[in-house]
Amino acid sequence: MTTADDTVKDEAAIRALVDAFVKAIRAKDVEGVMFAFAPDVVSFDLGPPLRHGREDFRGRWQALFEGHGPPLDYDVSDLNIAVGGDVAFSHSLNRTSATPERWVRWTACYRRIDGWWRIVHEHVSAPVDVRAGTAVLDLVP
Amino acid sequence: MTTADDTVKDEAAIRALVDAFVKAIRAKDVEGVMFAFAPDVVSFDLGPPLRHGREDFRGRWQALFEGHGPPLDYDVSDLNIAVGGDVAFSHSLNRTSATPERWVRWTACYRRIDGWWRIVHEHVSAPVDVRAGTAVLDLVP
Repeated sequence: MTTADDTVKDEAAIRALVDAFVKAIRAKDVEGVMFAFAPDVVSFDLGPPLRHGREDFRGRWQALFEGHGPPLDYDVSDLNIAVGGDVAFSHSLNRTSATPERWVRWTACYRRIDGWWRIVHEHVSAPVDVRAGTAVLDLVP
Repeated sequence: MTTADDTVKDEAAIRALVDAFVKAIRAKDVEGVMFAFAPDVVSFDLGPPLRHGREDFRGRWQALFEGHGPPLDYDVSDLNIAVGGDVAFSHSLNRTSATPERWVRWTACYRRIDGWWRIVHEHVSAPVDVRAGTAVLDLVP
């Protein structure tokens, strides 16, 4: 049975996973980034396509890191975590060091697999102006 | 303790909630739509702002329904649900009847509150082309 203590521990474990993920992004450490994700991750990413899986996941992170000259800054703010049994989700607003800085919305969904929390689904986005057909990239919380 | 039977039942309950939500959208039934959401829902919606809560939630649905002349068509496809205890999440690709039809990514996160599953967080988006500053609204699965 899941107790309040378990929930506190699980939330702490997920927060630690997110912290390690952020440190890996800052260090441009592809292996560290991949460690956060389950093999069958389904990603709704900031850019096209609508959906992608692990097959092109590593390459996208590699390209992102190689295409970015200066050290990457990355922050996760207002991280809100919910845990139930072996399933969890979080949502947050994440800031990148792009010039100008850019904020994106991040929803991450987790499963505990062989005792380890992993992201099995993530959703990263910026709002869009549907009528104008534009991305709204200059919003700040 | 959560059993496999419980998980099957919970997944069915969440699928029924999503079905009711879709029927409410098609019927332009604001109360039916609101029924799916928890009072403290945090929404990352297709349009700005970055994040909004229940205070402007009902008005946005009302405006959407009133601004749309013909009957609304709406489909949720590839709905994937994970449940653990009193927490769950789903992801899907949703089609609207806009002309041309438009596909969006939808992640919904649920909590069981007083025995009823409710959406406490949702994330709706289209991919964006960051360099061009455009929304990519013509993608199909």
